[in-house]
Amino acid sequence: MSNTSINNNEVDIVIAAINSDLEPFMNEWRPVFSQFHLIIVKDPDMNGELRIPEGFNVDVFTKSDIDRVVGSSTSILFSGYSCRYFGYLVSRKKYIISIDDDCIPARDTNGDLVDVVAQHIANLQAPATPFFFNTLYDPYRKGADFVRGYPFSLRSGVTCALSCGLWLNLADYDAPTQALKPGQRNSRYVDAVMTVPLRSLMPVSGINIAFNREVVGPALFPALRLAGEGKLRWETVEDIWSGMCVKVICDHLGLGVKSGIPYVWRRERGDAIESLKKEWEGVKLMEEVVPFFQSVRLPQTAVTAEDCVVDMAKSVKEQLGKVDPMFARAADAMGDWVKLWKSVGSSSPGV
Amino acid sequence: MSNTSINNNEVDIVIAAINSDLEPFMNEWRPVFSQFHLIIVKDPDMNGELRIPEGFNVDVFTKSDIDRVVGSSTSILFSGYSCRYFGYLVSRKKYIISIDDDCIPARDTNGDLVDVVAQHIANLQAPATPFFFNTLYDPYRKGADFVRGYPFSLRSGVTCALSCGLWLNLADYDAPTQALKPGQRNSRYVDAVMTVPLRSLMPVSGINIAFNREVVGPALFPALRLAGEGKLRWETVEDIWSGMCVKVICDHLGLGVKSGIPYVWRRERGDAIESLKKEWEGVKLMEEVVPFFQSVRLPQTAVTAEDCVVDMAKSVKEQLGKVDPMFARAADAMGDWVKLWKSVGSSSPGV
Repeated sequence: MSNTSINNNEVDIVIAAINSDLEPFMNEWRPVFSQFHLIIVKDPDMNGELRIPEGFNVDVFTKSDIDRVVGSSTSILFSGYSCRYFGYLVSRKKYIISIDDDCIPARDTNGDLVDVVAQHIANLQAPATPFFFNTLYDPYRKGADFVRGYPFSLRSGVTCALSCGLWLNLADYDAPTQALKPGQRNSRYVDAVMTVPLRSLMPVSGINIAFNREVVGPALFPALRLAGEGKLRWETVEDIWSGMCVKVICDHLGLGVKSGIPYVWRRERGDAIESLKKEWEGVKLMEEVVPFFQSVRLPQTAVTAEDCVVDMAKSVKEQLGKVDPMFARAADAMGDWVKLWKSVGSSSPGV
Repeated sequence: MSNTSINNNEVDIVIAAINSDLEPFMNEWRPVFSQFHLIIVKDPDMNGELRIPEGFNVDVFTKSDIDRVVGSSTSILFSGYSCRYFGYLVSRKKYIISIDDDCIPARDTNGDLVDVVAQHIANLQAPATPFFFNTLYDPYRKGADFVRGYPFSLRSGVTCALSCGLWLNLADYDAPTQALKPGQRNSRYVDAVMTVPLRSLMPVSGINIAFNREVVGPALFPALRLAGEGKLRWETVEDIWSGMCVKVICDHLGLGVKSGIPYVWRRERGDAIESLKKEWEGVKLMEEVVPFFQSVRLPQTAVTAEDCVVDMAKSVKEQLGKVDPMFARAADAMGDWVKLWKSVGSSSPGV
């Protein structure tokens, strides 16, 4: 990590403000975040006044900004956790890091504060190795390397597009799992990051992620919205859906996705049993979603993330649209998202 | 790990004696190995008298046993590290654990001795999950679970056939890597074990492994022998080759392979630069081997590990045989191995 050279001007930290009082959150993150530009997007459903402490370089976006930029589109909804995608849209930086507002910095096994920005950027700057598994995890980490038998021709790797961090304390389980094991907390700090292999699908959690906006920005979008979606992570699947898309797209474009460190410490929030009463739908959907993404293939003509999202949206509509109207709506949102991305991207930086 | 119930009668520990004095090795392992049956196979190239300390339940096999059982086969050579495969052949147990004789027990991050047997058996007894990636690693470990978005239909997993452990201190690098970084030692204890995803190939190291002999025993064999093969791990690829076969076979049969804990502490041995002078062939071979295994497909008629090895041998001969005669010899050895496995397996247990 000490080898990572970060150009602070290449990083935006995007925070979805689900809670109006961001003071405790931002004060906890001050040592890590204060040298970077922050984009805070206020959940358009929230009425309270945002409280943001002094001493940060921050731009705040609210419902009126969203309405102005997005205009009349009704397929894309930026409410709840999805508001952070508006930050992805208006950013002009190479890298985006996004952390949920119920997380605070974690400590590693030595008790040192985890620098989530430095580690995510290290993950994104070092190549990914999706074509062959390295048993000693990330071969580019200090003290590690490729093991015996790893082909030399694959050791240069590919660009890493997405870095998925993890969570200590309250892990990102679904409501049924958390309801079944109400006392379960994650205390295992696994000091590793690895490339998720080619064609291996994964559930991407939006809680603690970073990505190269220039290469996969258009593939991170709010498209799949549950009828009973709420303001707790286990009541959403928008990140899981987008994560399946982005993994398939990275596989197609020859890009890599990493999972592992950095950790954040996730505070407890919500009542899993209450969530379970109203939301069970997301859990069932995965049974349709996973086989679709395991079999979907993108055409050779799709050479950018935008192309891929457009083609993926078509396949979603054709193959999943008939299963549930929610998927047809997701396909529409994906198509509209690419249009929006292009129009906002081609407008002046000062949206 | 505390949940693992081990039937000691189901486990054989197989040790290839490359060094004649096993006393220091076995005394280090006494707390872990003493309650299990050991099979020690003496490298047929070694002349010295084996030194084995008291207090172990051990059967020793030497060149004369190998000659008696294997008979006139000249395609399979049990010299050097390959002698341990003779132990796999004569074992009658469900699980085999094999550790190189230059390894001693490792300590975990708490300073506790790693029980390599208990952890390997825990890995083999808990299901594997090759069809979807779980970001919190092995979901069956105490304190872990499947994360949000993991399909419920895939949570029961499949039988784990192979558990690949790791190495602290001297890691299993190839000679060029170790020669380039002569001081490099692995000090990172990553407290995780995970299923290597479906269709993701990996370099299986024979230094510290365990497997379910009943389901994949026939797929672990000494087949690919380098012309310049020596008595140091980085001068061999027999385990890498067999590991590629076993991973493809596990994928075909719907079985799982895990990688991660348990660690062993690997002592320093050999001079990488000297090895590099005589052995560079193994490194180059992987450039041919990996694309072959990435594309090879087994027929639906192959429903056992034996079937799969026979079919794989045919493909090796057809597709790689013309590239290098070493591959044609490997294919012959694989065919002969299956015959040998069947004949030894059908003979009485007291070989």
